[in-house]
This record gives sequence, C-alpha cells and structure tokens, in this order.
Amino acid sequence: MFTPVYFDHNATTPLDTRVLDGMLPYLTQHYGNASSRHEYGRAARRAIDEARQRVACAVGAHPTEVIFTSGGSEANNLFIKGAAAMLAPGTLAISAIEHPCVREPARQLARCGWQVREIAVDADCRIASADFSAALAEKPALVSVMLANNETGVVQDVTKLAAQAQSAHAWFHTDAVQAFGKLPLSFRVFNAAGVHAMTLSAHKIGGPKGAGALVVDKRVDLQALIAGGGHERGLRSGTENVAAIVGFGLAAELAVERIKGQAAGLLALRTELEDGLVARGAVIFASAVQRLPNTIYFSFDGFDGETLVAWLDRAGFAVAAGAACSSAHPEPSKVLLAMGVSPALARAAVRISLGAGNTQQQVRDFFRALDNTLLQLKGLVAAVAVPTH
Amino acid sequence: MFTPVYFDHNATTPLDTRVLDGMLPYLTQHYGNASSRHEYGRAARRAIDEARQRVACAVGAHPTEVIFTSGGSEANNLFIKGAAAMLAPGTLAISAIEHPCVREPARQLARCGWQVREIAVDADCRIASADFSAALAEKPALVSVMLANNETGVVQDVTKLAAQAQSAHAWFHTDAVQAFGKLPLSFRVFNAAGVHAMTLSAHKIGGPKGAGALVVDKRVDLQALIAGGGHERGLRSGTENVAAIVGFGLAAELAVERIKGQAAGLLALRTELEDGLVARGAVIFASAVQRLPNTIYFSFDGFDGETLVAWLDRAGFAVAAGAACSSAHPEPSKVLLAMGVSPALARAAVRISLGAGNTQQQVRDFFRALDNTLLQLKGLVAAVAVPTH
Repeated sequence: MFTPVYFDHNATTPLDTRVLDGMLPYLTQHYGNASSRHEYGRAARRAIDEARQRVACAVGAHPTEVIFTSGGSEANNLFIKGAAAMLAPGTLAISAIEHPCVREPARQLARCGWQVREIAVDADCRIASADFSAALAEKPALVSVMLANNETGVVQDVTKLAAQAQSAHAWFHTDAVQAFGKLPLSFRVFNAAGVHAMTLSAHKIGGPKGAGALVVDKRVDLQALIAGGGHERGLRSGTENVAAIVGFGLAAELAVERIKGQAAGLLALRTELEDGLVARGAVIFASAVQRLPNTIYFSFDGFDGETLVAWLDRAGFAVAAGAACSSAHPEPSKVLLAMGVSPALARAAVRISLGAGNTQQQVRDFFRALDNTLLQLKGLVAAVAVPTH
Repeated sequence: MFTPVYFDHNATTPLDTRVLDGMLPYLTQHYGNASSRHEYGRAARRAIDEARQRVACAVGAHPTEVIFTSGGSEANNLFIKGAAAMLAPGTLAISAIEHPCVREPARQLARCGWQVREIAVDADCRIASADFSAALAEKPALVSVMLANNETGVVQDVTKLAAQAQSAHAWFHTDAVQAFGKLPLSFRVFNAAGVHAMTLSAHKIGGPKGAGALVVDKRVDLQALIAGGGHERGLRSGTENVAAIVGFGLAAELAVERIKGQAAGLLALRTELEDGLVARGAVIFASAVQRLPNTIYFSFDGFDGETLVAWLDRAGFAVAAGAACSSAHPEPSKVLLAMGVSPALARAAVRISLGAGNTQQQVRDFFRALDNTLLQLKGLVAAVAVPTH
C-alpha cells in the first residue's frame, strides 16, 4: 500500500494507537447511555467523569469547568452564540484572523442587532495593539482572540490581551484548538489574567474526531446551543459520545506528556524545512515571531498554492493550501489578507504542519519531490508562455 | 465477567460488530480531514459520500437531503432553532410528548418572541385530533410531532397529520429517532404528504454514538446551528466525524435489512413480557394502540419506578425508569402526565426496550428476578408499615 507522507497535522492528526485502545471497550462491551441508571450506564458515566478529569488536568482547569462538545466548531459556536444570547445586543470584538467557526457565528449575531468589531493584525499576524485598544474603547461585551493561528501558527499574547480587556468588563474567549498539545497552557493562569473561556478539540492532538470542549469560567452565563436532556450541566444536551470523550481524555494526557520532549525535534525539522524553502526562493509568513513549533506557511511567488498541493499530493506528500476547513473555497486566505499580503502571494500559500511521526528523512524526500515539482511547473509555465506552433 | 441482560435499547444500542469493523479503518489508516485536498482527505470524503448514500437509501431520501450532525439532539435543535431563525417570530406547535431536545429549544424560542403551542395527546399517547386542528387554526409556522415516542413506543400517523398541516403552510418536522430501524419509513412518502424534515440517530440502531442526521426538504430555509467552515452545505460546520458517519451508514443499511425479519420475534417477546406483567398486576401504558414492537412501558401501582430499576439492576437486568436522557431528574414522566396518568402511577413507570440480542430465556429469567424483587420490596413495605418495636 502506498502511504503518502503526512504533513498536515493542523488539519487533523492520526489517532494515537494508545488512545484507540482506550476507546475500544466503549465501542464494544461498555456501550451504555451515560444517563442510564444501571451498570451499563454507570460504566459510561464513570468513563466520562474520568475523561473530564484528564482533560481538566491537561489544561489546568477544574473538571466542572469542562463542557464536552462534538468538537472545536461547536465549542466556539457555544461560546459566541451562547454568551450573546444571555446579553442585550452589544459589541462583539473578534480578531481578523479567527477561524470561520468564530467568524460565522459572529456574522449570525450581526443579523440580530450585534455590532461585530474586527481587530486588526500586523504584518506578522499579531494583534495590532493600537487597534485592540481602540476596540476595547468601544466596550465590547464579548472578545474572542485565538491563541495560535491554524494557518501561520502565530501565537498571541492572550494573557496580556485579556488583562487589558478586563477594563472593558468583557467576557474574553480564546480558541486554543491549534495551541493545545503544541504549547503548554493553563486555564488557571489564563483565567487569573482575565480569560473566561477556551476552546479545545480532540482530533488535533492525536484524539478522535467528534470530541471537543469549551472550558469555561462558571461566572459566564451561557445559553445551550444544543438544548434538551440537560447533559453537561445543562449547557450541551445529547447522549454523550462516550468513546470519543474517553479518547479525548487519553489524548489530552498524552499530548501534555509529549509537548516538552517533542518541541525541540519539531523545531529542528521546521528549521530545516524553512531553510530549504527560503533557499529555493520561498517567502515564509510570520517567520520573525513566536509560532507553533510544527507550522510552516510559505509561498513561492507565481506558483498557485492549490496547484502545488495537488502536485505534491501526487508525489506522495500531504500538505495544505490555506486552512483545510475552508479549502472548498478557493479565495485567498483571509488570514494572509489581514496581514497585508497581496492576493497573488496569498493564493500561492502552502502550509506544512508537522506531527509526532515526521522524520528528517521525510523532509529530505520532500525537498526532492518539491524540486521536481517546481521544475515541472516551471516547464509548464514556459510551455504556455511560448507556444510551439 | 458478570454481563447484565440489556433491556434498554431505546436508550442506546450495542454497536453492531459489522459496523465497528467498517469504522476501524477510519480510526486507523484513513485518518484524514475530509476537507483536505490530498489522498487522506479524499479517502475520508469518499467514505462520507458513501455513508450519505446509505443513510439516504435506508430512509428513502435523496443524499443531498441528508445533513449529518453529532446526533439526534443536535438535529432536532437544528430544525427547531434553525428554521425559526429564518422566519419572523410566530407560532411553533409541538406535541406534549416531544423529547426534551425538541421541547427545550422550543422553550428558548419562547424567550425570543415565539408562541409555543403544545398539542395535547389522548390517554393512549396519540395526538388528540381536535386539539391538533385547533393548533393548526393558530397558523403555526413550524410543527413538530415525533414519529414514535421513546417512552411508550406509540406511533403517530405523521403522514395524516402532515397532510392536515399543509393548509397551515407550516414546515412540518418529525423526530424519527425511535422509529428508525424499528419500522419501515420513507422520507419520500412522508415528504409527499407534507413532512419537510426528519431527525435520525445512529446509536439507536446499532450504530455509534456521535452521529445523526436531519433529513430535510431543500425548500426549508435553515440557519446553521454550528456555523463555520461551511460543511454539510453550510448547514453544519465542523470537521466531520468520519468514522461515526461511516458507522451510521452501515448501521442504517443493516437496520433496514433487519426490520422485517426481526419484528415478529420482538413482538412475540413483547407479548410474553406484557402477558406476564399483566398477570402480576402491572398496568401497560398505551397497550391498545400501534406501538414499536420492542417497547413495553408499565407500572406496578405502589412501587416506585426508580427503586424497581435499581433492584432489577442488582439482579442483572438493565431497564429504564422513564427516558434515560432525563433520568437525572426524578419528576414523573411528562409523557405519562400528558396522557392523563396520575403522578403516583407515573412515578411507578418502568420501560423495557428490546433489541436484536434479546431471547425468550432472558424474558423468563427476568420474570424470576422480578418476582423475587417484588416479594422483597413488599416485605420492605410491610416492615416499614409495621414497626417491630
């Protein structure tokens, strides 16, 4: 079987085999509904309680602050729409580089009387201080700034931003989906600085698809997005996906154990990739600022990103053009445009996101495939430019 | 290992081993994000497309009418809140016996200017015709009546109700979570009669927890409950839970194949259970009308349902008191109260819901355990009534 090299860990990660092993009993003998009052139900409930402990411990939160959801998109929607529903319409401030699952619920609120204030970023994808202050001066009721960007990997100083936002008395949310498992993070520290809610996802950290969480300060009043039987303290109804939640717990624990040991290796691979890319004429986005150790976002000017991704795919390398979740839409990356990158250069963008399984050999093989691809694409361009008839 | 007899299939079902086998490749080698533009992504996308075909085929729908969600609760919320969001506030008519995941989003709408009109049921748990007509006269914009009730198993004549509702020009939704896999059903037939949307869940039919669907007529305008990357035709964003969706597709196919062969056997077990319960003095709810072949809902007057469930659990039988999803709340069943059952008799209610694995031997063993339990409980009651000092 042909197994392409996987360089797309920000889109999703392989399920850790230890995580799958931990999930399997809940896909076989322990199949109960966690709300049932019999042994099958109690076994499921115990597993969820334990997973909640693991996730809470991994991110420095109290277990009662962890609301399990079906994933990061749901958790972001739960915060944005759920917190807004308990307030009179006001201003919601979100950064210009948020994931669509923050941007789109914000857009829905804009149709219900809310003002959506976009906070600008600078050329390095960092929140622009002056614009952040200006946004706070508009007294937003809600603020959402992601911890690490899925495309560039740039990390925001959320602690500092949240502390600043306290003067506005806003509820401050951060989408930590991409940061979790790549950087140490503590909700306790965040919360002390003024962060009130944080989104997590299991499938970005070696866990299963179908589980995520909103970690939330209990002072934040939320309306359930999915209302019903009253699961998750009334904030998220629906029969719990026990196996996925168990997997999330295990993956969270493993991710935290891995962070330290893995960072240096990832950084070495990232450096090797970036050096090689720059040597071949690529622009690396946000290369001067703190980024996730696994993420490289680059453009070869004049080469369409989607095309490069397709050619590299055929050559056996799985990389991304822009964010996977929006790659059905071939517009240039909103994140790059917000950074002031030209639409042409943004259309050329390609993302490599490394993971635990990647090796130096794969990086070297990648460069062979890339050189070959660039050569062929240049040939095609030349052939189109100089017709032979 | 002690394995209790599972008589609680309306709460959740064991995952069919053939379904798990079909899911495993998507929990191991095929781990891609279905939005990714490389081979990992395409493999995931193909699997989702195939699962959508299977689910559509199982319920007589077109694949483009199937919107995958994380489960039945989400699908019900998507319809109720999603359809309402696209309309000016008006009247929403729901039956008095809906699941909390229809009732609670309706209650949320009531706080946003909507009138929620509850449609009464008769003593047999069937929609009361006169009250249904009266509700339609109030020109509801949305109507939701479940196909089969999770507690009593009573089946509504949804085709007839929807046809009647057409005069009101309402969007008509039915929660088919409990009916699916137990009765043949066709969205095409429903739709022709005036049903515009139908909710399904995978874990009630031998599929995994974490997958469900709203099957919906494309004329219904819906606002996404979970907005973001634009998955599921923009109606449900978030990285698809590929393995769970694959499992849903397989389970749907198997459920439909099973219905005919299984109905007679389930009905025979149900009759044996009901005869034995009646002989011991139980009241069977809605025994005179069309019900799911697997569901028996009964009370022993004077015996608390929760207590009976706990004792039967210790004796090795997993049954339910009221609906599992709300069993954290010990109030008497809203469904039974709506049927005019006294609170005392409603508190005594116990549900047995059979499934593919249940046998006549288990039914006989159950009666031995029940007789023993009733005897012991009577002894306790007597001991409490006549103190010995």
